[in-house]
Amino acid sequence: MLKVGVIGYGYWGPNVARNFHAPGLAQSGQSEVVAIADRRAECRERAQQAFPQARVSGDSGDILRAPEIDVVAVVTPVWTHFELAQQALLQGKHVFVEKPFTATTSQAEELIELAARKNLQIMVDHTFLFTGAVRKIRELVQGGVLGKLYYYDAMRVNLGLFQHDINVIWDLAPHDLSIMDYVIGKKPEAMVATGEKHLNGHVDIAFLTIYFPGNVVAHINVNWLSPVKVRTTLIGGEKQMLVWNDLEADEKIKVYDKGVSVGAGEGEAGVYDLLVSYRSGDMWAPRVEQAEALKVETAYFVECIHAGRAPFNDGLAGLRVVELLQAGENSLKQRGKLIELGQPAFSAHYS
Amino acid sequence: MLKVGVIGYGYWGPNVARNFHAPGLAQSGQSEVVAIADRRAECRERAQQAFPQARVSGDSGDILRAPEIDVVAVVTPVWTHFELAQQALLQGKHVFVEKPFTATTSQAEELIELAARKNLQIMVDHTFLFTGAVRKIRELVQGGVLGKLYYYDAMRVNLGLFQHDINVIWDLAPHDLSIMDYVIGKKPEAMVATGEKHLNGHVDIAFLTIYFPGNVVAHINVNWLSPVKVRTTLIGGEKQMLVWNDLEADEKIKVYDKGVSVGAGEGEAGVYDLLVSYRSGDMWAPRVEQAEALKVETAYFVECIHAGRAPFNDGLAGLRVVELLQAGENSLKQRGKLIELGQPAFSAHYS
Amino acid sequence: MLKVGVIGYGYWGPNVARNFHAPGLAQSGQSEVVAIADRRAECRERAQQAFPQARVSGDSGDILRAPEIDVVAVVTPVWTHFELAQQALLQGKHVFVEKPFTATTSQAEELIELAARKNLQIMVDHTFLFTGAVRKIRELVQGGVLGKLYYYDAMRVNLGLFQHDINVIWDLAPHDLSIMDYVIGKKPEAMVATGEKHLNGHVDIAFLTIYFPGNVVAHINVNWLSPVKVRTTLIGGEKQMLVWNDLEADEKIKVYDKGVSVGAGEGEAGVYDLLVSYRSGDMWAPRVEQAEALKVETAYFVECIHAGRAPFNDGLAGLRVVELLQAGENSLKQRGKLIELGQPAFSAHYS
Amino acid sequence: MLKVGVIGYGYWGPNVARNFHAPGLAQSGQSEVVAIADRRAECRERAQQAFPQARVSGDSGDILRAPEIDVVAVVTPVWTHFELAQQALLQGKHVFVEKPFTATTSQAEELIELAARKNLQIMVDHTFLFTGAVRKIRELVQGGVLGKLYYYDAMRVNLGLFQHDINVIWDLAPHDLSIMDYVIGKKPEAMVATGEKHLNGHVDIAFLTIYFPGNVVAHINVNWLSPVKVRTTLIGGEKQMLVWNDLEADEKIKVYDKGVSVGAGEGEAGVYDLLVSYRSGDMWAPRVEQAEALKVETAYFVECIHAGRAPFNDGLAGLRVVELLQAGENSLKQRGKLIELGQPAFSAHYS
Repeated sequence: MLKVGVIGYGYWGPNVARNFHAPGLAQSGQSEVVAIADRRAECRERAQQAFPQARVSGDSGDILRAPEIDVVAVVTPVWTHFELAQQALLQGKHVFVEKPFTATTSQAEELIELAARKNLQIMVDHTFLFTGAVRKIRELVQGGVLGKLYYYDAMRVNLGLFQHDINVIWDLAPHDLSIMDYVIGKKPEAMVATGEKHLNGHVDIAFLTIYFPGNVVAHINVNWLSPVKVRTTLIGGEKQMLVWNDLEADEKIKVYDKGVSVGAGEGEAGVYDLLVSYRSGDMWAPRVEQAEALKVETAYFVECIHAGRAPFNDGLAGLRVVELLQAGENSLKQRGKLIELGQPAFSAHYS
Repeated sequence: MLKVGVIGYGYWGPNVARNFHAPGLAQSGQSEVVAIADRRAECRERAQQAFPQARVSGDSGDILRAPEIDVVAVVTPVWTHFELAQQALLQGKHVFVEKPFTATTSQAEELIELAARKNLQIMVDHTFLFTGAVRKIRELVQGGVLGKLYYYDAMRVNLGLFQHDINVIWDLAPHDLSIMDYVIGKKPEAMVATGEKHLNGHVDIAFLTIYFPGNVVAHINVNWLSPVKVRTTLIGGEKQMLVWNDLEADEKIKVYDKGVSVGAGEGEAGVYDLLVSYRSGDMWAPRVEQAEALKVETAYFVECIHAGRAPFNDGLAGLRVVELLQAGENSLKQRGKLIELGQPAFSAHYS
Repeated sequence: MLKVGVIGYGYWGPNVARNFHAPGLAQSGQSEVVAIADRRAECRERAQQAFPQARVSGDSGDILRAPEIDVVAVVTPVWTHFELAQQALLQGKHVFVEKPFTATTSQAEELIELAARKNLQIMVDHTFLFTGAVRKIRELVQGGVLGKLYYYDAMRVNLGLFQHDINVIWDLAPHDLSIMDYVIGKKPEAMVATGEKHLNGHVDIAFLTIYFPGNVVAHINVNWLSPVKVRTTLIGGEKQMLVWNDLEADEKIKVYDKGVSVGAGEGEAGVYDLLVSYRSGDMWAPRVEQAEALKVETAYFVECIHAGRAPFNDGLAGLRVVELLQAGENSLKQRGKLIELGQPAFSAHYS
Repeated sequence: MLKVGVIGYGYWGPNVARNFHAPGLAQSGQSEVVAIADRRAECRERAQQAFPQARVSGDSGDILRAPEIDVVAVVTPVWTHFELAQQALLQGKHVFVEKPFTATTSQAEELIELAARKNLQIMVDHTFLFTGAVRKIRELVQGGVLGKLYYYDAMRVNLGLFQHDINVIWDLAPHDLSIMDYVIGKKPEAMVATGEKHLNGHVDIAFLTIYFPGNVVAHINVNWLSPVKVRTTLIGGEKQMLVWNDLEADEKIKVYDKGVSVGAGEGEAGVYDLLVSYRSGDMWAPRVEQAEALKVETAYFVECIHAGRAPFNDGLAGLRVVELLQAGENSLKQRGKLIELGQPAFSAHYS
């Protein structure tokens, strides 16, 4: 039975706690929430009501220093992740960290190294990777159903919620960058980001282009000022193409048997011409697993800890996303300057 | 009665000819098609069948040199526009040119200058500017209904049609760039474009960011390799926001009474905080005129010629779009290099 | 402080209990859940966990006979409603009953009479009447925005959930019949129902037509065997028409400024002709309140009890729906036989 | 080369004429339009312009009596069909008649008998039967893909167009009744129709229920007073279910691998219970042929005439639809009275 302490019980913390304490898991002796910490009194009250048996405290140190705790879940703002995770690791605890992993790549690298030294596991909470839709998409792309990949184009826009401490890239793009990283599974080469700020604070609309080898290009459109909510990703390949609309209740993924082939020849007027042939066949919407993603994810982390093996959404996966976020912010500030991505994290992972 | 000669009778030419020969116009003595030229025999056959009274020829010179012709409509590939339009102007004819206006800005400038010298009118066929939807959007934006403009984000993607002589920017973006120019009515400052080519030829997916003064940003997503057709533009302003979905039969434009205001103050933990307030009210879909855009456009050109006055979609408007296309292509080739837009065409127009 | 006992803690009971025990209400001394009964052990377990302070029992008599209980909420299958509600009323308790009110009109009439004699309130849980959408629709129709009413056409179809004790009319149509009754506010004249059964049990697809005076007609399409979920109602009036799509996240209600006027005159061939003129204007989607309907409803019941006044969704409202359900079932069994609706319940209410 | 005369050149006549004169057909010596008649001068003018080689006349007799004409296409209001078709048949001409076939079943029967006696073919223009979508649906249903059929539920509503001579059943329902007849391919047993009239003339909203043997039920919802256009048909079977949305540009047909099985057993409380199991798998949208339906239909008629064989949309098919229309109108007038369908036409066809 792994004992879990949860730091941060605001918007997402209750979900993390509930899933680390899921009846199924606890009964099979795998994990239970024994302590929760939050600085806000009203959050502590809600925590105590939901977890009457847990110790609830206003001081995260009560969790970090508790000898019986095996796993610390850090569900706090990004700028606090490094220190909390570092303390937890130093105290010999496995760490589950909210995304984005850290505020800088060097923080991420330090945590990864520390965990390796102490033989502990880090999981970064890229929850989307555990949805039925994303798992199906990875399966289709990695399984070759789409053929050679051409592009990945994601749109994630809606009205708010404005964050007071981060901009729209750090708020919304981690979802798409982690999914992109998982689905494409290749090392990106460079990033160009543009965007703008309109209210007195952070960038609220941004467009990221990520270059991959082999002419694969990814594009991510994030916007806090859209009157409508859009969660749509187009993925084009040589053989088939797919549309993932996460707002559809059913039929989230549609796979189109559509494509273009291009040959070349002499055109009508003796001009060297492209000979284009289109193909348009059936569309197919595979059934997508409906299980709660966070439940699958927390159960998987418990399993990884027991097995002494790194999850695929480990610190390196978190680092790769932080590197992309940093590159994006950096590029955007310089109005789209190309930022080369030659980092060790990617190299370590893909080579 | 203006006499019109049409050069090019392929895909779009028949529509141009039909509208310059619309019964309403012809009867009121305003314009009629008297000659059509196309190099392709099968196009000439179709032209003769549709316009039994017109002279149909394989040689554009038959139109360019015909003394009784007042207006030449150039509906041919872009790389032929300059020479045909130049000849027409030299022969004292008004010119209606398919978009994009020319292949380079210097060609456009030369034609504009020539027309001015000869006191002739040029209209560039940015048909979309004459749709009920675009006219309504301009009215809403320019009329202040949206308040201070924040962003303009357009997506125009579908499968094909591949052009053998131009890339996706030159094929699809002229629509959005001309609409953006018309709706925003401001001089852009700079452009960043990214994208990629996948088949052996031209760029088939591209993302343009256009910076305007006052933190206004425009973004255009064009793609020839999408399994689904999307024609959606989001426009956000301080007071209201709108979505234009051109694929909707009715309700093409939806105006949302939604917005965000941001103040500032001391947050919970003594941290300087953003105080965000959201507003969400009714949605409203104004009725949009259904008249055929090209009919409105050709009638307007006839009217401009009679009145001796430049249409708003004149050579300068065409030049502005060509400058943006050139900048986009230029930026894309350099992986998103920022291209400053300091051209005379914009200056002339907006100052 | 009203003390509430909840009988039935299966699918819907937890929601009823939660709302009668809402912090807001309990703190202001208005209602609290003190007892819960369910025959199923696993339901009792969940109940006790959620309401640690409540007495939880397997015997509904523990609630019906408890002297301190003021309100009994009956959230059980329809065939048990009469007996439970009758006992509760005899014990001097106000009654909140799940829809449909009772299995027969005579049961409903008996309960209404009993409550009147004991000076107690009955509320039938037609939750939809407390949604922002339905309240807005009633406001539009009763406020004359649509003009003279022409028709009300509702579709409520999906796959399952099959009920083992009732057919699709008794399962799905109570929603639409209660909404129709509330929105139209007129006494219906007659009913025709058709449909069919396909699996070994109950009717699973049914079509109800309800005739109202003045050529108003209502139609309700309910189906347990649809591959897609549809929740759409069209309401047509002389001046405007409205579409309510309850599956839309935003823009649930769209009001169309569309209509037809018909005059008469001599047509082309001397034939007496209809002269039809269409009108098509803007569309408008009013903002709809997002508050949880059941919360509004339970708070309203508490308020009605304190004020000693009948809610609008009282026993009579429940009876009117039961009469329509009975007529529908009756008509369906006789393959669409017209059933006249001349019942006292409607007469009492509308005269 | 079959010579075709077209009577009626209003809204639909030009399409019929164009397709009987399609270059492909005419060149292969199969059919050409040689004469057109219409009482309206402006229609004759348009006809002459489009068919310069045809004789255009104001008198249908010029076509009916022309000895060289092989086929008469009757594209006029329904109340004129009988007399025109009868004359054509008496003059030895094959007949293509607009839907609905005739105004009464006895007229239809008389024409069928006359054609048989004269060894001539009748085709009733149920154009929808030649669309890719309907052909695919018939293939899926008749091929057993859906399993045993449960229901057919069609909705065809929009604003207008009001007809001055027929009601909404005769205007819109022929489409769905002919498709239903074609797809289900079984003899219906009885009909119940309800509806209402609101403007001073004809019924403008109607709901038809058609009973088939084996618990198959069809339902058709037609409405001239809907603010939105809907063209959606649900078809449920034991194995799979389909949705046909004719307004979708692509993906008109979606086939759902969804279903319900019902067994029986002892439920929790010793009550005899239904044991329901749901199945939910992939969705699949087969590619649908895009060819113009009327082109396929007219080519097929020419082929049938050459082969001396009755088309499947022959006079009997037309009669079956007229019988259903008559039954519907009859039932509606009597507020949903059940009308038995025991007619010879169905018997002849299906036995």
